[in-house]
Amino acid sequence: MSSQLLKGKKGIIFGALDERSIAWKTAQSAVANGAQIVLTNAPIALRMGKINELAKECNAEVIGADATSDADLDNLMQKSMEILGGKVDFILHSIGMSPNVRKSIPYTNTNHENFLKTLDISALSLHRVLQAAMKADAINEWGSVVALSYIAAQRTFPGYNDMADAKAVLESIARSFGYHYGFAKKVRVNTVSQSPTVTTAGSGVSGFDVFYDYAEKMSPLGNASAEACADFCTMLFSDFTRMLTMQNLFHDGGFSNTGVSARIIEDMQKAAGQQ
Amino acid sequence: MSSQLLKGKKGIIFGALDERSIAWKTAQSAVANGAQIVLTNAPIALRMGKINELAKECNAEVIGADATSDADLDNLMQKSMEILGGKVDFILHSIGMSPNVRKSIPYTNTNHENFLKTLDISALSLHRVLQAAMKADAINEWGSVVALSYIAAQRTFPGYNDMADAKAVLESIARSFGYHYGFAKKVRVNTVSQSPTVTTAGSGVSGFDVFYDYAEKMSPLGNASAEACADFCTMLFSDFTRMLTMQNLFHDGGFSNTGVSARIIEDMQKAAGQQ
Amino acid sequence: MSSQLLKGKKGIIFGALDERSIAWKTAQSAVANGAQIVLTNAPIALRMGKINELAKECNAEVIGADATSDADLDNLMQKSMEILGGKVDFILHSIGMSPNVRKSIPYTNTNHENFLKTLDISALSLHRVLQAAMKADAINEWGSVVALSYIAAQRTFPGYNDMADAKAVLESIARSFGYHYGFAKKVRVNTVSQSPTVTTAGSGVSGFDVFYDYAEKMSPLGNASAEACADFCTMLFSDFTRMLTMQNLFHDGGFSNTGVSARIIEDMQKAAGQQ
Amino acid sequence: MSSQLLKGKKGIIFGALDERSIAWKTAQSAVANGAQIVLTNAPIALRMGKINELAKECNAEVIGADATSDADLDNLMQKSMEILGGKVDFILHSIGMSPNVRKSIPYTNTNHENFLKTLDISALSLHRVLQAAMKADAINEWGSVVALSYIAAQRTFPGYNDMADAKAVLESIARSFGYHYGFAKKVRVNTVSQSPTVTTAGSGVSGFDVFYDYAEKMSPLGNASAEACADFCTMLFSDFTRMLTMQNLFHDGGFSNTGVSARIIEDMQKAAGQQ
Repeated sequence: MSSQLLKGKKGIIFGALDERSIAWKTAQSAVANGAQIVLTNAPIALRMGKINELAKECNAEVIGADATSDADLDNLMQKSMEILGGKVDFILHSIGMSPNVRKSIPYTNTNHENFLKTLDISALSLHRVLQAAMKADAINEWGSVVALSYIAAQRTFPGYNDMADAKAVLESIARSFGYHYGFAKKVRVNTVSQSPTVTTAGSGVSGFDVFYDYAEKMSPLGNASAEACADFCTMLFSDFTRMLTMQNLFHDGGFSNTGVSARIIEDMQKAAGQQ
Repeated sequence: MSSQLLKGKKGIIFGALDERSIAWKTAQSAVANGAQIVLTNAPIALRMGKINELAKECNAEVIGADATSDADLDNLMQKSMEILGGKVDFILHSIGMSPNVRKSIPYTNTNHENFLKTLDISALSLHRVLQAAMKADAINEWGSVVALSYIAAQRTFPGYNDMADAKAVLESIARSFGYHYGFAKKVRVNTVSQSPTVTTAGSGVSGFDVFYDYAEKMSPLGNASAEACADFCTMLFSDFTRMLTMQNLFHDGGFSNTGVSARIIEDMQKAAGQQ
Repeated sequence: MSSQLLKGKKGIIFGALDERSIAWKTAQSAVANGAQIVLTNAPIALRMGKINELAKECNAEVIGADATSDADLDNLMQKSMEILGGKVDFILHSIGMSPNVRKSIPYTNTNHENFLKTLDISALSLHRVLQAAMKADAINEWGSVVALSYIAAQRTFPGYNDMADAKAVLESIARSFGYHYGFAKKVRVNTVSQSPTVTTAGSGVSGFDVFYDYAEKMSPLGNASAEACADFCTMLFSDFTRMLTMQNLFHDGGFSNTGVSARIIEDMQKAAGQQ
Repeated sequence: MSSQLLKGKKGIIFGALDERSIAWKTAQSAVANGAQIVLTNAPIALRMGKINELAKECNAEVIGADATSDADLDNLMQKSMEILGGKVDFILHSIGMSPNVRKSIPYTNTNHENFLKTLDISALSLHRVLQAAMKADAINEWGSVVALSYIAAQRTFPGYNDMADAKAVLESIARSFGYHYGFAKKVRVNTVSQSPTVTTAGSGVSGFDVFYDYAEKMSPLGNASAEACADFCTMLFSDFTRMLTMQNLFHDGGFSNTGVSARIIEDMQKAAGQQ
């Protein structure tokens, strides 16, 4: 959607890989709503992805940064402020990767070195971004940081593997750092727990299609699309949500508070009929 | 199970209708673990049920009491202390009835007088019991009050109708009264959120069988039985759980924290194959 | 704040009593953002309050309706659609009253008739509004209903009395009805759990000032004001939050997820020094 | 407390350092209730602590194991089964250490290598223990694994630093592994979220005394002692809690569901009077 909700605001968007990424859509939504942005991603993702297309469309510069490198993040903060001509008002963290998921290593026979990498890349990276921003005093008062999460942080979805634990830390970091950044600088930090989304990353999880369908049938409004999530992030960056912090917000068409739906019960009956 | 966990303890059990009732099993478990009890139920339930069989088995007296009548509950507290020779150590509240469910009135076209009756009978009754007990100073220090609840208090299960809202108030009353009773007299108040259970009351809900099967397949340990729930209540009455209060405890084989199980996904695939 | 976020949208605002009411501010925010509204309140509140000032300012008509009367609500829905020239897109429910709080009757020695009235006025009224709206098919697809709640629904604040239990039902009704309205008509229903707010209603609770100060010191961003809450409601009425439903959203400067703050610990130390 | 609740059961207790440890008390409680146990701790803790006193008292052997070493844990499982003459029925995980807390490094200027160590030692160690147990098939059906947690996993307590994030992962691992172990072998996994406790570990956190006092005044039953926690763990190892899994159980005298207490408000008033 297009309004002037972010007019005059500046931001940094992490994690836009291709046109299916939520970060890609969020960049588009932010710019359509008046914001000026910088795009960033890991060097390897910059080479593989099509971020330059997006940069052109959004009139944005791209700065490479490994989100597990404090030095890269320090550089990103400085460069972003130079390019944007001042402090930023919002940051989107859309970063997640599990070597165990990639290699289909089962959760109960995991590789713990990989597990620590999952946590480092997918969760501690948020802490690193916040710490780099605070150190550089790179965020304006009432600025807004949003990280993308998933309900596996609260309940077990077997295919999600150690990403579940990573999302649990991610949400915890949002609370912990949000406490300190709120008192110190009125900066707010929240996570968005989004429906399963057909992205290049999301669809890599095994059994994604059936699970997507399950979530669709459980959710009174259906699964939230990447576009809807992008608009929701835009609203979290805006001044209309200034007093929201340390929260995990379910953006999921009602999935999280639905115990079971009539449509799932019908499928259960069908399956029983077949047995 | 039989131990001497409740040796020397006295209690009041509400809501034993027949041998499938959780309250019935809890009476048996409490007595098998050394407790002395009084049984109580609504006058109409006393006439319809088989509570005298249970009373005989448990060597317990039966006192009729309408849980929506403060006078009846005052009388119950006095009589119980006379019979048991002193204050009680535990109370089980297992009371629930919805006129709207009975009459199959849909939630979105409800009768609001019935709705208020559902709340009065199924939730405010806990407040009445606690208030009557406090007024009569009928519970020993470190005494334990347990009320049976259901996860519909947190998430929507469409067949559960206005009982969902009643359970939400019930759990809220446990917290609110638990605060006051804890500070005043070290009495603890908790709710147990139990798996769907094949009781005379539970099985009256429409579509219960399919739903029971759904919960069974979602729960890593399967649905908790009425017997297991009874033993769990016994442990909540015991001194092994003295510092637990104002909590809602899920006794459900893991259902509440399972987002989806492999078995449900298999059923979804079967149903899809059939379409 | 002023944008065109609600341009072309129509809504009904319940509960604007005077210029300190959240509903009053929400009416102003909605209109400033392009909406056309109808104001409503209980007949007695219409006589006592200054709603005609607000109506003039907002170019809105006022329709009296007792939120515990299904007939009044049916009339409200019909009249609103006539006046606004079609279905509505949003409704704000800001209704709460406890006879027990008014009469300073303690929670542990309550009057249960009053208690039921608290639930009827403060919680079932949301169900009545939703049922009347659904019956009249008065809400457009993707319409948004918001009810104001308070964190006493989750944790005990002793001064809040039976309003805590009412808010627990209110949030449960939002989930339950949200499920049905979502599947049927894509209408979303949420509650906003707002910071303690200096309103005519809020400040009536005993010990409000100390408690307000406590919440202020616990919240990294401070307490959310009525104006901030109004803007947040506007955002929830907008298309930027389309996939949010059945949620309770804490709009509280971070209070809900703060276990304790450094400022509270300092006060504790001061108090200890004085002992 | 002493009963025969764990008669015939065998278990492994991690983390008994000295007589103030919860693990120490749990070992005593388990043995007093009829269990046979093996004690284990990190090699360095074995040298520093007084575990041999406890071993003598409990008639237990001590096996050293670094909980971040898969090899050590494999060895522990084999040795334990040899010593105990079969599979175990319960395991207590009481392990936590943060280099950042030890070195008083503030959360917003943290050392991320330390942070990863905190997560590895305090949280992934639970996953390692469970994986080693599953691999060795070392736990009987219906066995029970309990890990000690803290409410900082849900809400921010500034002094708790990165241990908050570690507890969030710990609880997530309990859910995730609990799902798999439940379906596979009926083994249950839970965490206990305990009151602040005067242990050698707990009292090292800065400002512990004031915080302990705060929690005491907030909790209707006061803070739960280490002894009470030990008895609660014994109960969770017993057959009275067979259907409980993937849960985080607050054992805290009511702290977690108390929004504010009258006693805290009084302290706030005192502090205000002093200003």
